[in-house]
Amino acid sequence: HQSKLPNVGTTIFTVMSALANEYKALNLSQGFPNYPSPQLLNDLVANAMNNGYNQYAPMAGNLDLRLAIANKFQQLYNTSYHPDTEITVTAGATQAIYTIISAFVKPNDEVLIFKPAYDCYQPAIEVNGGKTIAIQLSAPDYSVNWDEVASKISSKTKMIIINTPHNPSGTIWSEEDMLQLEKLTKDTNIIVLSDEVYEHIVFDGDQHHSACKFPDLKARSFITASFGKTFHNTGWKIGYCCAPEDLMNEFRKVHQFNVFSVNHPAQKGIADYMADAETYLGLNNFFQQKRDLFLNLIAESRFKFMPSKGTYFQVLDYSEITDEHDVDFAKRLTKEFKIASIPLSVFNENNKDDKVLRFCFAKTDETLIKASEILCRI
Amino acid sequence: HQSKLPNVGTTIFTVMSALANEYKALNLSQGFPNYPSPQLLNDLVANAMNNGYNQYAPMAGNLDLRLAIANKFQQLYNTSYHPDTEITVTAGATQAIYTIISAFVKPNDEVLIFKPAYDCYQPAIEVNGGKTIAIQLSAPDYSVNWDEVASKISSKTKMIIINTPHNPSGTIWSEEDMLQLEKLTKDTNIIVLSDEVYEHIVFDGDQHHSACKFPDLKARSFITASFGKTFHNTGWKIGYCCAPEDLMNEFRKVHQFNVFSVNHPAQKGIADYMADAETYLGLNNFFQQKRDLFLNLIAESRFKFMPSKGTYFQVLDYSEITDEHDVDFAKRLTKEFKIASIPLSVFNENNKDDKVLRFCFAKTDETLIKASEILCRI
Ligand SMILES: CSCCC(=O)C(=O)O
Ligand SMILES: CSCCC(=O)C(=O)O
Repeated sequence: HQSKLPNVGTTIFTVMSALANEYKALNLSQGFPNYPSPQLLNDLVANAMNNGYNQYAPMAGNLDLRLAIANKFQQLYNTSYHPDTEITVTAGATQAIYTIISAFVKPNDEVLIFKPAYDCYQPAIEVNGGKTIAIQLSAPDYSVNWDEVASKISSKTKMIIINTPHNPSGTIWSEEDMLQLEKLTKDTNIIVLSDEVYEHIVFDGDQHHSACKFPDLKARSFITASFGKTFHNTGWKIGYCCAPEDLMNEFRKVHQFNVFSVNHPAQKGIADYMADAETYLGLNNFFQQKRDLFLNLIAESRFKFMPSKGTYFQVLDYSEITDEHDVDFAKRLTKEFKIASIPLSVFNENNKDDKVLRFCFAKTDETLIKASEILCRI
Repeated sequence: HQSKLPNVGTTIFTVMSALANEYKALNLSQGFPNYPSPQLLNDLVANAMNNGYNQYAPMAGNLDLRLAIANKFQQLYNTSYHPDTEITVTAGATQAIYTIISAFVKPNDEVLIFKPAYDCYQPAIEVNGGKTIAIQLSAPDYSVNWDEVASKISSKTKMIIINTPHNPSGTIWSEEDMLQLEKLTKDTNIIVLSDEVYEHIVFDGDQHHSACKFPDLKARSFITASFGKTFHNTGWKIGYCCAPEDLMNEFRKVHQFNVFSVNHPAQKGIADYMADAETYLGLNNFFQQKRDLFLNLIAESRFKFMPSKGTYFQVLDYSEITDEHDVDFAKRLTKEFKIASIPLSVFNENNKDDKVLRFCFAKTDETLIKASEILCRI
């Protein structure tokens, strides 16, 4: 019995986390915090269970949560999405992405993605018979050549997937990048899928440029976002997507038959938590302190780096240490040095190996200090 | 922007629940309990959150939960599924079903389903370019003509989807039905998807015949199941599927890119709850008491019925009352008589109207008494 993904293996996140567990290594590979989820938030979810939020949520999501999301877009980006028709809560951003692609991508449709790319885009395109058109960006700054993008757009282009702040590189797209994208897609039928799960994690006073701030872009875009990344509980699997009504309407036709609806007590707890305070505004500082701690401590190591501009990931260049393949080196670091990371080649076209590894700094200061000590010894 | 499901509307469950809310009607339409989720189980989920089960679960599911599931199969059906390689926890059975179909059904593959059919099968087949081959069963007993099934199987048949105990009809398949299916699929490459979410709800001393009890059938089958239906919290969206390793391996290739993993605290809470006791064994009696209460109270009404043999649904024939179309009648009952149900025609081929409505009896006795009073007045 062959599936439609005969050549796909297990995701690198599962592989590296399992290896980290096996070798009792510090796990800076898979992106998740090793400190607690906020107690108040846990308590609000427990309250939701004890107050009867245990049956199917509405298919589009708990209404209080959709109102809180609409409020976020208004406050942060000065733009509106209607909670009834333009916002849907999903089982994490990944499920939103898979469902968006499934709803629209037909056999032989082309989908443009930028590499290194988070690993869920391409298999979703392939399951639906689409063709991935990759644009390879390069270390260390991963900047976009917009002429190249223009040259890869054709009448077959159904969708363009973008991701800013960018996982795994830790770069962000400038306002100029977003304007270029807006210009290139104007007067086309191209759908833009803008993966913005790290929207609240941007450093050094920089700004996140959400696709929703550019009117022509907003009109053709799905924006996907994640509470797990924002509220430090990646395992709850609550995310959402927003889009203009015509797109959202089509999305929901598939969403309702993929998961129907999403864990209700977690939705209600998050809604109450967001009503309480502007809960995500401190995130930039929280993670900047962690990035800075980590980078200061490894400044004297043999790893080279450009400081991450967003996300909770830092890419380190190890080319002065060894010319081993990055997957081999990442595995050896896990086994011998007890520190796990993610090799970037798995996200590149033809597994291009730039000799860089990605480290997650959503960790306690204690863990970051231990990790830095190890990295300085390598 | 057309999606791949241009003609699909909103599911009947969303439509009828919304109408019930609007008209403040008793909601016996969408299948969910109106009594609390077990307090102990809620508390175990809260404990899980407070004990750090807030980051990504393993892609296949929390290990304790997979062990508990394996144990269930051993105890109940005397068969084994390996927790590492043959069991995956999903965001409800619906997500398992969508993912199974997405993993295997290619454009122009044929998938056999029996109608009336739960409404998520056919759209999932269509999104993936497959062709639905429907076998229409008929009220009141919905029995299968296996010669007809044999005549519809061809070299294009990729999958057969079955569902016992059956939603919406409340019938169950006999051992003979399962043996017929086993015989018909022997020496073929057909995958069987056996939707058994109501496995623990069977009445009058009857037995549920799981596909896993028939060795040749088990070897080609996915079995999907649901904790929401079993532990009275449909809104938590935790289910699972089991299959032999070769099939499960292919399933996980897609699952990991659809949702990656499932709400972790709910998984851990359910695992602890199942370890405590044989928590599902009382379910037959619990729901039989409700079915009997409901049927006794409406015995004198103008509705006719064959008692439900499984699931928490009862189909009622209203042909002696009116010849209105079932969708119209269901809506009128909601608006005028303040009681919501599900019209069966939406699950039938060409919306065949047998003048029957489905009522959910997973409700407090008080609600069932009120509902019966209304039904006796009609
Ligand atoms: C779904 S596991 C991967 C988590 C993540 O976002 C990452 O590590 O990049
Ligand atoms: C997913 S909403 C429908 C719930 C259900 O299983 C039913 O009512 O049949």
